[in-house]
Amino acid sequence: MPNPTAAMLVIGDEILSGRTRDANMHHLAGELTRAGIDLKEVRVVSDDHAAIVAALNALRATWDHVFTSGGIGPTHDDITADAIADAFGARIDVRDDARALLQAHYDRQGTEMNAARLRMARIPDGATLIENPVSAAPGFTLGNVHVMAGVPQVFQAMVAGLLPTLTGGAPLISETLRIDRPEGDIAGPLGDIAAAHPDLSLGSYPFIRDGRYGANIVIRGTDPARVAAARAALAALFPGQTS
Amino acid sequence: MPNPTAAMLVIGDEILSGRTRDANMHHLAGELTRAGIDLKEVRVVSDDHAAIVAALNALRATWDHVFTSGGIGPTHDDITADAIADAFGARIDVRDDARALLQAHYDRQGTEMNAARLRMARIPDGATLIENPVSAAPGFTLGNVHVMAGVPQVFQAMVAGLLPTLTGGAPLISETLRIDRPEGDIAGPLGDIAAAHPDLSLGSYPFIRDGRYGANIVIRGTDPARVAAARAALAALFPGQTS
Repeated sequence: MPNPTAAMLVIGDEILSGRTRDANMHHLAGELTRAGIDLKEVRVVSDDHAAIVAALNALRATWDHVFTSGGIGPTHDDITADAIADAFGARIDVRDDARALLQAHYDRQGTEMNAARLRMARIPDGATLIENPVSAAPGFTLGNVHVMAGVPQVFQAMVAGLLPTLTGGAPLISETLRIDRPEGDIAGPLGDIAAAHPDLSLGSYPFIRDGRYGANIVIRGTDPARVAAARAALAALFPGQTS
Repeated sequence: MPNPTAAMLVIGDEILSGRTRDANMHHLAGELTRAGIDLKEVRVVSDDHAAIVAALNALRATWDHVFTSGGIGPTHDDITADAIADAFGARIDVRDDARALLQAHYDRQGTEMNAARLRMARIPDGATLIENPVSAAPGFTLGNVHVMAGVPQVFQAMVAGLLPTLTGGAPLISETLRIDRPEGDIAGPLGDIAAAHPDLSLGSYPFIRDGRYGANIVIRGTDPARVAAARAALAALFPGQTS
């Protein structure tokens, strides 16, 4: 059986102006190759509703999967979610599940939810959320289209969570452990835990909040008991510093 | 009057597989911005005749200029020139002007022209050549499509020669001086010459040949006398080492 095929749609004026060098295409290309999915085409379009809709509809009709990056942030030029909904003829509004993820994240941070942040909870009807272990605002899958953030750290975290669900393997479980310690302090113990759990994937997504360093550790695997055991083992090494 | 618009078509399986990280898109994006041309769309397609023809025809019908990179080398998978010709319905064969450029280059090198190298002289009828100061094999412009190499050093040299011809400025003259010295020895004097000729652009394209270092210096400007004077001044600094 031939490999599934894929396209990528990169959305962003900052790439086309040369202000920002795209990093996501190269990352996704390598990850898809490792996953046995053939990337056949990439398009980069500007922050323009009609351009996104046209490119999206051409790509999703041609290839098995379409991965998008960019345009799902809080500012007025983040129009990807609405364009995707329009391409599918799907209704879009703030969705409770996405709003709850954001609200919990901002509550932990002591940050106020405002109208701009709430835009990131706009999710088309029928879409399933893609986890964002870095900054909470989720991506989503609608049909054969996987909509992800443009910030490379977030894009990579979303790809890491999404890809194993596409390759026909067993369903993947994930748990997140927040550790309020610099990543350099976490790396050694985390490596030991990872070595002791070769059946799991452990990703570290560092953050700085109010000048203090921490990391969200995402533990993924197919056996819920193994995932929980790894999380507990890691948490035991940082007493009083995890949540 | 609004800026002219442009698209880029990147051709190459090695980009889509993640083996190679594309460098040309970011370079072209920056150069177009500086030149006052708006890059509106980029597509990356594989080394596939039908895919190249379809993408090329869509892009050239939509935007003022289309810049392509990749697929004009000597190997069997370098199919860009033939695909462009097909897209335009133009005849393509080895052309005498391109063959002469290659033959002179290989004669200087003591390299044999063979069937593979001769493929790089295949140019569609009606196209004008784009200079390649690095490795001789030319790119070409056909209609509003500018066909260039994928190797970043060559791509950048071609863009440097091509862009000033597109922005409505005075026609650009260019002369090349080969200096058989390491670029590190050339850089200082070259900088002085450049400073003394602020109306000219001086580019250095280094090479290694049979283990010896050298560079082709391309001098561009609108006044032939100034270009010739700068070339003579530079050559005088490296007696017996230029050609």
